[in-house]
Amino acid sequence: MNAENPADEASLQLNADGSLRHLLTLNGLDRQLLVDLLDRAEAFLAPEGDLPVRSNALAGRTVGNLFFEPSTRTRASFDLAGKRLGADVLNLDVNTSSRKKGESILDTIYTLEAMHVDVMVVRDASAGVPAFIARNVKDFVSILNAGESDVSHPTQGLLDLLTIRQHKPDFGNLAVAIVGDIRHSRVARSAAHGLHTLGVGELRLVSPPAMAPEDGDLAFARIVDNLEDGIRDADVVMALRIQRERIGNLDGIPGIDEYFANFGVSEARLKTARPDAIVMHPGPMNRGIEIEGSVADGPQSVITQQVTNGVAVRMAVLERVAGSQELT
Amino acid sequence: MNAENPADEASLQLNADGSLRHLLTLNGLDRQLLVDLLDRAEAFLAPEGDLPVRSNALAGRTVGNLFFEPSTRTRASFDLAGKRLGADVLNLDVNTSSRKKGESILDTIYTLEAMHVDVMVVRDASAGVPAFIARNVKDFVSILNAGESDVSHPTQGLLDLLTIRQHKPDFGNLAVAIVGDIRHSRVARSAAHGLHTLGVGELRLVSPPAMAPEDGDLAFARIVDNLEDGIRDADVVMALRIQRERIGNLDGIPGIDEYFANFGVSEARLKTARPDAIVMHPGPMNRGIEIEGSVADGPQSVITQQVTNGVAVRMAVLERVAGSQELT
Amino acid sequence: MNAENPADEASLQLNADGSLRHLLTLNGLDRQLLVDLLDRAEAFLAPEGDLPVRSNALAGRTVGNLFFEPSTRTRASFDLAGKRLGADVLNLDVNTSSRKKGESILDTIYTLEAMHVDVMVVRDASAGVPAFIARNVKDFVSILNAGESDVSHPTQGLLDLLTIRQHKPDFGNLAVAIVGDIRHSRVARSAAHGLHTLGVGELRLVSPPAMAPEDGDLAFARIVDNLEDGIRDADVVMALRIQRERIGNLDGIPGIDEYFANFGVSEARLKTARPDAIVMHPGPMNRGIEIEGSVADGPQSVITQQVTNGVAVRMAVLERVAGSQELT
Repeated sequence: MNAENPADEASLQLNADGSLRHLLTLNGLDRQLLVDLLDRAEAFLAPEGDLPVRSNALAGRTVGNLFFEPSTRTRASFDLAGKRLGADVLNLDVNTSSRKKGESILDTIYTLEAMHVDVMVVRDASAGVPAFIARNVKDFVSILNAGESDVSHPTQGLLDLLTIRQHKPDFGNLAVAIVGDIRHSRVARSAAHGLHTLGVGELRLVSPPAMAPEDGDLAFARIVDNLEDGIRDADVVMALRIQRERIGNLDGIPGIDEYFANFGVSEARLKTARPDAIVMHPGPMNRGIEIEGSVADGPQSVITQQVTNGVAVRMAVLERVAGSQELT
Repeated sequence: MNAENPADEASLQLNADGSLRHLLTLNGLDRQLLVDLLDRAEAFLAPEGDLPVRSNALAGRTVGNLFFEPSTRTRASFDLAGKRLGADVLNLDVNTSSRKKGESILDTIYTLEAMHVDVMVVRDASAGVPAFIARNVKDFVSILNAGESDVSHPTQGLLDLLTIRQHKPDFGNLAVAIVGDIRHSRVARSAAHGLHTLGVGELRLVSPPAMAPEDGDLAFARIVDNLEDGIRDADVVMALRIQRERIGNLDGIPGIDEYFANFGVSEARLKTARPDAIVMHPGPMNRGIEIEGSVADGPQSVITQQVTNGVAVRMAVLERVAGSQELT
Repeated sequence: MNAENPADEASLQLNADGSLRHLLTLNGLDRQLLVDLLDRAEAFLAPEGDLPVRSNALAGRTVGNLFFEPSTRTRASFDLAGKRLGADVLNLDVNTSSRKKGESILDTIYTLEAMHVDVMVVRDASAGVPAFIARNVKDFVSILNAGESDVSHPTQGLLDLLTIRQHKPDFGNLAVAIVGDIRHSRVARSAAHGLHTLGVGELRLVSPPAMAPEDGDLAFARIVDNLEDGIRDADVVMALRIQRERIGNLDGIPGIDEYFANFGVSEARLKTARPDAIVMHPGPMNRGIEIEGSVADGPQSVITQQVTNGVAVRMAVLERVAGSQELT
């Protein structure tokens, strides 16, 4: 299995007629398709005080959640998205240990395919797994990447785009700062590709040098190694979750206190961004490490709105791929 | 987080118009509200041989089961209650370890709220958690306490009241004996508060001295330190599940054999209760410790009826809080 | 609890009018009942390219999956079968450790019965458990054996029969070879009993001597101790999953390489079977041990078809037992 090859994966996820068959990466998806998905997601957002929007678009369909890495929020989000579209949802207890018991991942997939699980939502710690699966399933199956190693998390990217668009619709004039361990972040990578496709004015990737993207990766963005420059006059500040096990254990990676002092999105630091800047985080948050609690709960935070948008975006993607499957 | 403060929590769980918004404790709920819930639960009980009663009262709603302590039966009971009312039910894998990973309990709650999970069923090992959550959710969310430390287990209390009422409707003339580790039992506490509110004639709390309530707690009941006095002429005998890890490990707590000999509800002991006394147990049972197997399976046992009533009571509570949410 | 007693269990699983109440074993079920179930399962198979067949036969019913042994595929298959028939499906987290906590298995069953779980799907590592439960439930409950120790796995047997019949409908003229650890295989045992009842021409059980059936077990079959003789001119070759922990650890049980060399179903070996022979495996497969990967994926393999048939067979069984329950 190879890591992301943009041209390959971008074409792999489309049918011959250009419709979306799988969702593996935002890298290489064209602008109109992204905009269509965001527009459709808006239709799945209920007005404040209403019950969630429902439809029967997936009646008779089966969505299988295959999380080879643990997850609470993304799994719950896909679970609700599937149910609110009328699908049967199958949550599978698959973990690395059961895979070591001897069954290959493809045999697991073939089994689910034979049970007519027609949308498989896959999270995996290894790069290339979702595309590898997508290459090997039958015409009636769609694969949705729900988090792939450090590489890609496309529904997270879409919900980030939707949230930004709701507050700052003119992407060409935006300065967006993503702050944290860029190098190991699938969240950053998917947001960056989506923002680039939508023509963001300026994208800054802000991190200690040891956490900056490798040479040549995300080359369209500006690499910044200090927070002050990174968020100055930014319209959007996105803090990334830091993996605690990385902190202080690697050369050049600072300890917790030093990390918060230098790269934590705090009230004081946020003052250098634009006054109407929005603050984002993919969750779950380490309050007091990558983000100050008062910022997370403050008036500029749109973090819970991201979660709400997550269900809507996943409904839009599920509806789209189910509608484009070649059933006959 | 503080433990139960009756006045605070009783008002916290009601809307301004007196309707039930959350269910956190039976302590302080008024008699009419309890009676209404029991009456409504009766309507959710199917005649023998019929399929379970269903309704669409929760169609479009989402019930989230957040069990921070393991549970099979209470989780299954809420799961079925939700499904039989037409709700989507989300079972979350949350445990103490995932909470230690750094996300605060409120961030988990805010995430579910943002996904429009509008009834959250919470079990937690720490006192005060359900009320703490209830104080922090939006107007469209209801919190149901499904077991809170040693403090409260209100749906268990309601199912106990319903079961007693089905056999002994005249509470004023009843003698009820609750036998076991009263001090550490949320089941005993909720049943005691409910019985007190319904005007039970006499409530006896029967335990070894080390397991008696602390001074001032449940002061309306009679404390009895031996089983013979405790169940003499009782109409209702409720045995509590004993935590095996407590037995024999604490000062003044007897070993298993001694416990059964002195506080086990056995056939022989039961003869001193009224001949038509009913025997209750919240489950899961330790047969041969707190209750003799032949009593659990005998003609006076109403233990499985308690389980059946549990689903009906939870349907009544779910319907009630969903109906009183301020959606607009 | 005693192991399978054919006469007892066969009658236990039928109502007085001969209709199927429980499904515990294929041993002793009459031919017409097997044929009826296979015919009905065919009706639950969708044409290629269609969505899965659905019905409301189990609307209002509750199916409880009680897996005391871990399982992904069988649990998923029953889960989907129940949902596609309109049932509520309750997946229970029960494992041996929770059983050790003190609740007897019957108390767990009584609890589910009291919640009106009317079909209980049970997998257990101990022989006799499904029958023991079936003897103790009320008239409205059906027990389906989803895997019982080494003894029985009747829905697997039915899906194997269905798959064979789709390719080779004339059972009287068939030679079927089951290859592997026959002695410890509930899959082999259920397939063997079903094939015997349907009048299979010749059944060969192929294994190293230490894995052959015990004296007197499956006496209607021919025991073969080498693969070449075992699959010569066979119409059906079924490879069994080998438990890796058994290999090389017992007297007379060969190591992995030796096992594959002598009993692995390889392309080379398969040439001695009939050219139109089909190859089966219950999954999950150990590729390169009991079956060569190219055979599993080759033109003679019907392994994924077995999985598809598994859902259909389970729908047929669920529908049948739900229809025969004595609700009044």
